Amino acid sequence: MAETDQAPPPSDQLAALNLTDTVEKHAFSDRVLIRSIVGRPDGGAGLAGQRVRAGGWVKTGREQGKGTFAFLELNDGSSPANLQVIVDAGLAVLSKLVATGTCVVVDGILKVPPEGTRQKIELRVEKVVSLGEVDPAKYPIPKTKLTLEFLRDHLHLRARTNTIAAIARIRNALAFATHSFFQEHNFLYVHTPILTTSDCEGAGEMFQVTTLISESEKLEKELIKNPPPSEVDIEAARQVVSERGEAVKQLKAAKASKSEITASVAELNKAKENLSKLEERSKLKPGIPKKDGKIDYTQDFFARQAFLTVSGQLQVETYACAVSNVYTFGPTFRAEHSHTSRHLAEFWMVEPEIAFADLQDDMNCAEAYVKYMCNWLLDKCLDDMQFMAKSYDKGCIDRLRMVASIPFVRISYTEAVELLEEAVKGGKKFENEVKWGIDLASEHERYLTEVKFQKPVIVYNYPKGIKAFYMRLNDDLKTVAAMDVLVPKVGELIGGSQREERYEVIRERILEVGLPLEPYEWYLDLRRYGTVKHCGFGLGFERMILFATGIENIRDVIPFPRYPGRADL
Amino acid sequence: MAETDQAPPPSDQLAALNLTDTVEKHAFSDRVLIRSIVGRPDGGAGLAGQRVRAGGWVKTGREQGKGTFAFLELNDGSSPANLQVIVDAGLAVLSKLVATGTCVVVDGILKVPPEGTRQKIELRVEKVVSLGEVDPAKYPIPKTKLTLEFLRDHLHLRARTNTIAAIARIRNALAFATHSFFQEHNFLYVHTPILTTSDCEGAGEMFQVTTLISESEKLEKELIKNPPPSEVDIEAARQVVSERGEAVKQLKAAKASKSEITASVAELNKAKENLSKLEERSKLKPGIPKKDGKIDYTQDFFARQAFLTVSGQLQVETYACAVSNVYTFGPTFRAEHSHTSRHLAEFWMVEPEIAFADLQDDMNCAEAYVKYMCNWLLDKCLDDMQFMAKSYDKGCIDRLRMVASIPFVRISYTEAVELLEEAVKGGKKFENEVKWGIDLASEHERYLTEVKFQKPVIVYNYPKGIKAFYMRLNDDLKTVAAMDVLVPKVGELIGGSQREERYEVIRERILEVGLPLEPYEWYLDLRRYGTVKHCGFGLGFERMILFATGIENIRDVIPFPRYPGRADL
Repeated sequence: MAETDQAPPPSDQLAALNLTDTVEKHAFSDRVLIRSIVGRPDGGAGLAGQRVRAGGWVKTGREQGKGTFAFLELNDGSSPANLQVIVDAGLAVLSKLVATGTCVVVDGILKVPPEGTRQKIELRVEKVVSLGEVDPAKYPIPKTKLTLEFLRDHLHLRARTNTIAAIARIRNALAFATHSFFQEHNFLYVHTPILTTSDCEGAGEMFQVTTLISESEKLEKELIKNPPPSEVDIEAARQVVSERGEAVKQLKAAKASKSEITASVAELNKAKENLSKLEERSKLKPGIPKKDGKIDYTQDFFARQAFLTVSGQLQVETYACAVSNVYTFGPTFRAEHSHTSRHLAEFWMVEPEIAFADLQDDMNCAEAYVKYMCNWLLDKCLDDMQFMAKSYDKGCIDRLRMVASIPFVRISYTEAVELLEEAVKGGKKFENEVKWGIDLASEHERYLTEVKFQKPVIVYNYPKGIKAFYMRLNDDLKTVAAMDVLVPKVGELIGGSQREERYEVIRERILEVGLPLEPYEWYLDLRRYGTVKHCGFGLGFERMILFATGIENIRDVIPFPRYPGRADL
Repeated sequence: MAETDQAPPPSDQLAALNLTDTVEKHAFSDRVLIRSIVGRPDGGAGLAGQRVRAGGWVKTGREQGKGTFAFLELNDGSSPANLQVIVDAGLAVLSKLVATGTCVVVDGILKVPPEGTRQKIELRVEKVVSLGEVDPAKYPIPKTKLTLEFLRDHLHLRARTNTIAAIARIRNALAFATHSFFQEHNFLYVHTPILTTSDCEGAGEMFQVTTLISESEKLEKELIKNPPPSEVDIEAARQVVSERGEAVKQLKAAKASKSEITASVAELNKAKENLSKLEERSKLKPGIPKKDGKIDYTQDFFARQAFLTVSGQLQVETYACAVSNVYTFGPTFRAEHSHTSRHLAEFWMVEPEIAFADLQDDMNCAEAYVKYMCNWLLDKCLDDMQFMAKSYDKGCIDRLRMVASIPFVRISYTEAVELLEEAVKGGKKFENEVKWGIDLASEHERYLTEVKFQKPVIVYNYPKGIKAFYMRLNDDLKTVAAMDVLVPKVGELIGGSQREERYEVIRERILEVGLPLEPYEWYLDLRRYGTVKHCGFGLGFERMILFATGIENIRDVIPFPRYPGRADL
């Protein structure tokens, strides 16, 4: 198809052209959004005739017509759809435009392509405004089928691929859906701390945050450049002090003039100051400061040991117990040496906390929130979801529709165990033994949600022995008001509970699980003073993206994955 | 005013009662939102006659009518306004209800109070549903005038005060305004990493994140419990190996049966394995692992030194150079020993990054964003802003209105210095000398925005010597395309720049400022392959709250402030 083949749009198309149609210019740039052209219901045809400036990166390009023009598929990240761009050889050196990854800004006129082509609109370039070239021989992510594993070694460029860009848009949509949901329901977004001194569940899996190492390295360098005084130096300084002291004494005894004595005392003070400085410096020792054989954390930045948070729950409860409905959405950390496709050292969590609410309310909120996110993606990200369905998981859109519309099954832990036992009797093999009291393993959870019910399942009222001390003790004294939301594809998506609001009961529970009371006194205060029934849950944000997209490895759904041995950039 | 004084609402009020008016129940709780009653334009009067359940904390309470009833001012955090609640003595022990901080849930009927009272509606309680008591003698934050300094020592309870609750709502509003602004303008929210191995501006002010200390402490404990083998143990094990080896040799020489030889070889292997285990354990040394006198970071969690991020900019640029418009909104960290009212060790930053855009676009975006936030607060948080105006800064609402409506002044750095020099000539005293080339000090910035122009000022094109290497070099080769937004009350609110997109130029700049190239190779790749004109900025989120509210100390506008020596909870 040569450029001269480009027929003008048929007159009925021109007639249908709505003259109020305009292209959406980006608010803070002079280019248009490619989505606002090709993402229209008419595929952009209604915009034919308009002059626009477009910018983006070349997905594929090829010279045609014996080098007289080039086709470029241009994408600016605004959607998965590309704009087809046609550049004549007179406007640029075509070979510099066609390499995948090239960035171009072009001015041109939108035209309806000849019938029979896939596109409903294309851009005939009048001017190449700017060009960011690519040497295809060196470009680390050329247009070949690249595995997600390979892309993990090129974090700084992988967002230029269709898959990682689609995931970025889906992740963005889910994040804004999260804020929209909680704001619509009158929750306040609270920023819980990343740095914490509450070592909350006696975890050894926390990252420590410190300035002791860098301070000690700084000191070591300083001491090499400027060695500490020797005993001889100090003795000499001591000698000077004693001489100056003697001098003062003699002048006083000799009833010398006031100015003479003052001058002499000044000399003495200077000598004393020098001595104390030397003594101070002589105490400096290279290495991390210690006291009684242990690291002296009083010299650390926060004057005590500090860690990266594993959850904002306990802290956000202080706000729930003051302003009723709150949520936190931020990064959390685990220093676990897990090399699985489901774990990260840094991941994002959504943690709402609701006052004046019980476990039923908690389940209602969790279900409404998950449904809201599913509907949001179906409404606002269908093009990206179609890409995921085509490329990774053909059931992903149906799964969103199902979860958005079907009531979640709710069963007690005891019922869940009975169902699993029945399955075992029926011949189902599990690696982990099923009996009342066990923590449900991933295989059990997946069985319930994927095989038994084939829809989301909320399991509630777990044995207290396998759950945290802050979960509310039920009247049976054996179970606590905990709940987990299980969904097909990922298993556990949400874990939550009604919190124990009774002072005496929670105090007892802390002691029962072998924790010290002192670090929890502030948490106990929430029950001591104006206590309130409340509940909350945590949703692993990356798990939600795995669930939505069908992507297998959690390292591919967070922009900069951190795991044992890797923290690139 | 005894309860019997409560006249029924006059008939015209009853007539005005709109029967479609209903109280807004919280979605995940059976209580109503107090805001949905007292926050109505009619103060709630239109809801008279409705039965509701309300829950909240008592702000003030008093027994009246010789103990026959009590007035409670109830607040649930949904707004600064309280609901007046009246409880008869027959329903509860009134003395248990009236203490500040008490949590109550009550059922009752909304009634219009007698004329002459401030309230337009009050709740006559029919049942006290639940009660979280407070012992006023022990409650750490009783109803007395508490200073913000005092409250910083009670982080877990301070959200129960009017001030900290109002700040929480304003902070929430600004956070959601931030997301709404960028989403409306087609930016994608990108989660840049908190843990980073990019030590970006050669900063010594970064917090280090490590598991080496906890691992070494674990090892130390283990070695005490289970001491490493002595040389004698190892020698003994070596002896066993040699004996077993000899035994195998003899059996083979004696042409023993195959099964005898196999058994003997197995014994030998067991002995060898035991020896190698002992040798391995004997190498374990307490303390942080070292290699060539330096800490061996290959044994740290990420196999290299890791830090907390000081900015997500460089990382978010990788997304801007792929999907065009992005922003990050997350915590950032500085390990600086600053004890000022303007610095925190952990604070939140908003960092947009715009592709196909230059410094003008950057300024346009920054101005539009700040105005958007001001309008948002005026629209959605006027009641809280009125509280701040009454209690802390009477000009704060006017300031929001001014900033929302007036175009920001834009002057070059060179013009700014000239204006400051003029001021000095006119008799203005600055602590820091004014001359071209200096970094503007806070006093200079405040002079420009508060005295000279009395409105927001954007200063652009700074000397390259005082700015970062990644800012785009202007054609004068002396200045870079940087810009700072200065606002009354806080001075610098935003800092940004057009980024240097030219590979050769940025490479030169890195070398010029004395940084090594290697850690920036990934950043250079963004310029090597498909480079794009782009710009961005950072807004200190807490600074914005200080600006909005007039609060003086940054420690009061973040829920859990972290600063040298303090990281409570």
